Amino acid sequence: MSEEPERHPDDVQQHLRDVQELLSRQRLVEDLVLRQDMPRHDLVEDLVHRQHLAELQHRLDELHPADIAFILEALPLDERLFLWNLVKAERDGEILLEVSDAVRESLIETMDPQELKAAAESLDADELADLAPDLPPEVIQDVFQSLDTEEREQLRAAMSYPEDTVGALMDFDMVTVREDVTLEVVLRYLRRFDELPEHTDKLFVVDREEHLRGILTLEQLLTNDPETLVSTLMRTETIISFEPGDDADDAAQAFERYDLISAPVVDSEKRVIGRLTVTDVVDYIREETEHEILSNAGLREEEDIFAPVWHSVKNRWGWLAINMVTAIIASRVIGAFEGSIEKLVALAALMPIVAGIGGNSGNQTITMIVRAIAMGQVEHSAMKRLIRKEMGVAVINGVFWGGFLGVMAWWLYGSWSLGVVMTSAMILNLLLAASAGVLIPMIRTRFGRDPALGSSVMITGLTDSGGFFIFLGLATIFLL
Amino acid sequence: MSEEPERHPDDVQQHLRDVQELLSRQRLVEDLVLRQDMPRHDLVEDLVHRQHLAELQHRLDELHPADIAFILEALPLDERLFLWNLVKAERDGEILLEVSDAVRESLIETMDPQELKAAAESLDADELADLAPDLPPEVIQDVFQSLDTEEREQLRAAMSYPEDTVGALMDFDMVTVREDVTLEVVLRYLRRFDELPEHTDKLFVVDREEHLRGILTLEQLLTNDPETLVSTLMRTETIISFEPGDDADDAAQAFERYDLISAPVVDSEKRVIGRLTVTDVVDYIREETEHEILSNAGLREEEDIFAPVWHSVKNRWGWLAINMVTAIIASRVIGAFEGSIEKLVALAALMPIVAGIGGNSGNQTITMIVRAIAMGQVEHSAMKRLIRKEMGVAVINGVFWGGFLGVMAWWLYGSWSLGVVMTSAMILNLLLAASAGVLIPMIRTRFGRDPALGSSVMITGLTDSGGFFIFLGLATIFLL
Repeated sequence: MSEEPERHPDDVQQHLRDVQELLSRQRLVEDLVLRQDMPRHDLVEDLVHRQHLAELQHRLDELHPADIAFILEALPLDERLFLWNLVKAERDGEILLEVSDAVRESLIETMDPQELKAAAESLDADELADLAPDLPPEVIQDVFQSLDTEEREQLRAAMSYPEDTVGALMDFDMVTVREDVTLEVVLRYLRRFDELPEHTDKLFVVDREEHLRGILTLEQLLTNDPETLVSTLMRTETIISFEPGDDADDAAQAFERYDLISAPVVDSEKRVIGRLTVTDVVDYIREETEHEILSNAGLREEEDIFAPVWHSVKNRWGWLAINMVTAIIASRVIGAFEGSIEKLVALAALMPIVAGIGGNSGNQTITMIVRAIAMGQVEHSAMKRLIRKEMGVAVINGVFWGGFLGVMAWWLYGSWSLGVVMTSAMILNLLLAASAGVLIPMIRTRFGRDPALGSSVMITGLTDSGGFFIFLGLATIFLL
Repeated sequence: MSEEPERHPDDVQQHLRDVQELLSRQRLVEDLVLRQDMPRHDLVEDLVHRQHLAELQHRLDELHPADIAFILEALPLDERLFLWNLVKAERDGEILLEVSDAVRESLIETMDPQELKAAAESLDADELADLAPDLPPEVIQDVFQSLDTEEREQLRAAMSYPEDTVGALMDFDMVTVREDVTLEVVLRYLRRFDELPEHTDKLFVVDREEHLRGILTLEQLLTNDPETLVSTLMRTETIISFEPGDDADDAAQAFERYDLISAPVVDSEKRVIGRLTVTDVVDYIREETEHEILSNAGLREEEDIFAPVWHSVKNRWGWLAINMVTAIIASRVIGAFEGSIEKLVALAALMPIVAGIGGNSGNQTITMIVRAIAMGQVEHSAMKRLIRKEMGVAVINGVFWGGFLGVMAWWLYGSWSLGVVMTSAMILNLLLAASAGVLIPMIRTRFGRDPALGSSVMITGLTDSGGFFIFLGLATIFLL
């Protein structure tokens, strides 16, 4: 055993480079064949060609499905599909699960119903449920027919829960034991398994009707005398369990808070029906935060960076349209004061500062409040206190930055009254930003809406139009 | 055993409400004492007072440290400190580890060196290393003296690795076994433990010099014949291990990709020196994405929502200042065209639309590119292809939205040439946004910088000034 048991985390980058290298050599050969106008079956070329293909295929077979998924995502469409055809059919299912939604779509488009059915049949019920929305209905129908009764029931259950619930994340792989046996019996029972379900850190102790009675960890199983009864060891208090309808966010927070690896999912009668594992939770957390970051920037969903232009246009269209509406409103606010701007053109140059800094400051407030609400740490009763605090921050910033800008306006345009208007407008717009930054998310929560969705667009729209209105309004009253 | 073994994920909200209820009852009694000007030691009041305190303390003792941390974060400063004093001293350490940085600061400020020392001494070396930056130097000195040689070495090691490396996340709790023993021997060895290190899903097989030879999972241990030798079962290939200097982001991605629960950390000679677990990785992922979301909104770090106003001002100051600079630059660009605006005041009303939509569109591009770079999926060679694609999106959006706005400008101001200028400015500014959205992060990566940091501020600054310049410039040339 001279081999060093070692693989490095950044190896996947190396895999990517290797595959790209092989692909480009492959392409070189093909180019040669085409350019020299040689018959495609020329013996020598064909040999080189096949050799490269074999090497590439060999590399792919050795890679973890997640690594293949990574490489597929990083390749432009033509190379991606070329590679996808080299992947062994029986691995298609697990790889489709790993790739991003956008890339999955591009791969599924090229597969015929037979291939899709084969890929789907290699998966567990909970995995199948994840893939199902992307499959053509007739393929799902076919796969459904091929399942046994229990699997059908599981698939039906898994597909019936809305996204963002525990039911949509859970799997059905769990090991249950009875409480009236000794650890020795449990150990013998486990030895009959070829392998345990992935990430098994605890066994669920159930009665004859599958009601959850307690939890026995593998640790307890390993560190205690085999003669001990399960019932004397199992934990029965403060067991963290979930129901399939529970919010996935809450479950994710519980996993983080209590450092869980797995937890039972029970129905309303406390019967164990499934299991939630940390890896599903990690994937969920990553997806949720991805989604939040993308929608903050006005992207509907993750993009395949090599997607056709038209896909990207559709993905970004919605938020641009909303942005357009708020921009036009702000423009009409300015339009109402065109007379004032004509008389004092300095207003045109100064007004974007008031609007811009108001927007930035409002985004700071709303981001903080939205996060605190998401963590469940802001009760409605705290609203007054938070508004007072944010108002305090706004006044300090307004006086300081507004004062600075007032002096700048005075110095640039030689009018101290313009400076005073600038400072006052800054303070007022920051106060508007602060109160809207607290009120918008809290009111939306009160009415059961997601406080995060579009919060940045809303607050920016408000501080833009508000900022222009306040600044130009004050200027019209006091300067003209 | 009639008790239902069940705890629900949203219980922590209930805990919070219970504690708030107890606190407010507590306050009622105190108010009564104060208002009635009764001697504070009046017997009856004192009894009620003590009863509430005891109840509160009892509740706290029952709660998980993470739940206490959650409640402390959700309470205003005075109630938070009141509660903190009720927490048993021996639990201080683990709770300090769980609270957010901002809240930790507020708690540590109220503790004297003795209390801090006691809290610190209850922690493992790797936990201590996390807490150390927030502790006064003399406390660290004291704690350091009280450690044994091995722990000192571990603490020194853990503190020597920069944040964002595997070394800063790893712990030192691992179980190692030899390859020349049977599973039976391993099982007997484990039975001697009172408990295993948390999240032990695999044992590290090492030689006499602690070199990593292979991995034995608990699953293998449980599902195989006890007479089997470790060496025949242990995995020696494709073991994922890390070195302490490895980037924590890469490690987190590897944990996600390969669904790991724990992994060995080895030194350059492949000696096992520590362990990385999924819970550390989950915490890290959460912190990183939090940080990204906060810094996108211009917040330096997470805020204690009940922090004094002054703390918040400091936290938000930096980005506001940068925003101010870009706003002033944009304002001076407009200032250069004041003559044009004076002649055609419609320009003042239309220019923020060009700038705003350019900014929004640029943010969409840059967010997508930054994320793809972070995932390691964009090679420098892909730059040309990406720019071409983003240019395509920009042209489509520019023609469509710009065309719409051009018609609107024509309709509002009755000048078709103003409409043409509007449309052209939109197309050009979107092209600027697209190319900058690809180039800024790729060039920053090329020079070894973090492509995400401040990317939104930079692109918005550029599209604001650029949008004003393009629109007002075109108008000056073609309309006046």
